[in-house]
Amino acid sequence: MAKKQKVQAGAGGLLEQLRVPAGPVDLTAYDPRATPGFAGAKDEGKLALETLGAGLSDWQERLFAEGRKGGERSILLVLQGMDTSGKGGVIRHGAGLMDPQGLKITSFKAPTPAEKRRGFLWRIRQAVPGHGMIGIFDRSHYEDVLIARVRNLVAPNVWDKRYDQINDFEAELTAAGVTILKCYLHISPEEQKIRLQARLDDPTKAWKYNPGDVDERRLWPDYMEAYHAALERCNTAAAPWYVIPSDRKWYRNWAVTTLLQETLTALNPEWPAADFDVAKEKKRLAAT
Amino acid sequence: MAKKQKVQAGAGGLLEQLRVPAGPVDLTAYDPRATPGFAGAKDEGKLALETLGAGLSDWQERLFAEGRKGGERSILLVLQGMDTSGKGGVIRHGAGLMDPQGLKITSFKAPTPAEKRRGFLWRIRQAVPGHGMIGIFDRSHYEDVLIARVRNLVAPNVWDKRYDQINDFEAELTAAGVTILKCYLHISPEEQKIRLQARLDDPTKAWKYNPGDVDERRLWPDYMEAYHAALERCNTAAAPWYVIPSDRKWYRNWAVTTLLQETLTALNPEWPAADFDVAKEKKRLAAT
Repeated sequence: MAKKQKVQAGAGGLLEQLRVPAGPVDLTAYDPRATPGFAGAKDEGKLALETLGAGLSDWQERLFAEGRKGGERSILLVLQGMDTSGKGGVIRHGAGLMDPQGLKITSFKAPTPAEKRRGFLWRIRQAVPGHGMIGIFDRSHYEDVLIARVRNLVAPNVWDKRYDQINDFEAELTAAGVTILKCYLHISPEEQKIRLQARLDDPTKAWKYNPGDVDERRLWPDYMEAYHAALERCNTAAAPWYVIPSDRKWYRNWAVTTLLQETLTALNPEWPAADFDVAKEKKRLAAT
Repeated sequence: MAKKQKVQAGAGGLLEQLRVPAGPVDLTAYDPRATPGFAGAKDEGKLALETLGAGLSDWQERLFAEGRKGGERSILLVLQGMDTSGKGGVIRHGAGLMDPQGLKITSFKAPTPAEKRRGFLWRIRQAVPGHGMIGIFDRSHYEDVLIARVRNLVAPNVWDKRYDQINDFEAELTAAGVTILKCYLHISPEEQKIRLQARLDDPTKAWKYNPGDVDERRLWPDYMEAYHAALERCNTAAAPWYVIPSDRKWYRNWAVTTLLQETLTALNPEWPAADFDVAKEKKRLAAT
């Protein structure tokens, strides 16, 4: 009972609470250390995450089963955020609570020449989850209006057209049965500094550090401008954005996992009925 | 202390204990209810599995980190066994303890016409894990000397050549840095009957049942003959077979997971050293 009261999401749940309202976006208005929908502290948040595990895994199996028996629905979780914001952490600690057989995880790096030749959405389309699966993008097509814009990797008239192209693409996926959950992991530049410092101080974390991270960090205001544009121009009814305060890792993990759970619950997949004659099969089996 | 004593693997560990000796194989000599290397009961076995989680996850991250920094090693777990032997269960409960980002899971169904045209190893090669990854095959190229042989899907002179082709292929992978762990999940026909019955009795399991399962079940002796041939002819030093007694689900999950852990420990991946000037990066970061 006491545990349940820590979760304070309203009637519409956390999905409603964290959803970005339509219109201009100003990320400075979002506190990266806030914990909307959760009143407890770190230990309680970690426990709440573990508690989500069993239910989540059950819902996931229902969706998977539905997909095996002709259902065409799936979920796509898109994770975006500055370096160290915790895209990998969410996958490890949140998605890690589920059956890996039902997950399709894709980590997008800088596109190869072969990928570039095919247009920016080509490699994204390859990674769309199959029926019954939960797809997870660690970075995504949004990099094509983020780093591509900030670093002038393509001309302005090219990236400017991409917002509409992304909206069309996401609407197409939604119509085909994919529920898209786009999460921006919101950290402060101060928290990023602490996390990059930790990678430099801890030999077990050095492999995650790249000198380019500091170069990107220097462009923080430019990235925020690009995120504002992406969160405003691609915040459609078909595929809305969610801002996840992420300076507290435990809250970030709990929040994204809760959004996944609420999405699964809303889809409400049912165990597929037998598509064979059960009585007949029982007889056949008994005869062996 | 008491807990540790339940694990009774000898000096060579469970890998040595469950490894199939060279020479002719007779699966009737293996008790599917045995629990070699573990003296405890079900609850203790489940606890022992959970206990493996943290260490396994740490080793997995080291291997993953190594792969990101130029290391070329990986692990490939091949799961074979009759219907209901628990290939999916091992992935859910054993592999599920690890970070899904470091897993590449492939479930092989009947090959498509396009796959057949390319030769039986083509689709298998597509699924080989990348550097630092743990690949898992739910069924594999062994189906091409199992169902293909039992069901006469290809002529005898075709499947007969495949044993050598498989050995060559696996030796090639091993030379390229892939440690192959081939597990045969050994269940009794009596246990299979109970598990198929459960799928017919429980509406949440009906989606896993296929009337063809009973047809396959009727061919049990033929499948055992085909398994004997596969376990004998493809039991190489480069890629040996392991027999996992699997009538007890908890033992099966613990055993395969323990084999994975012992394999990771033997590879002993180390955290990659920084490939940049740490002092310089600290200064650059401090200046931001």
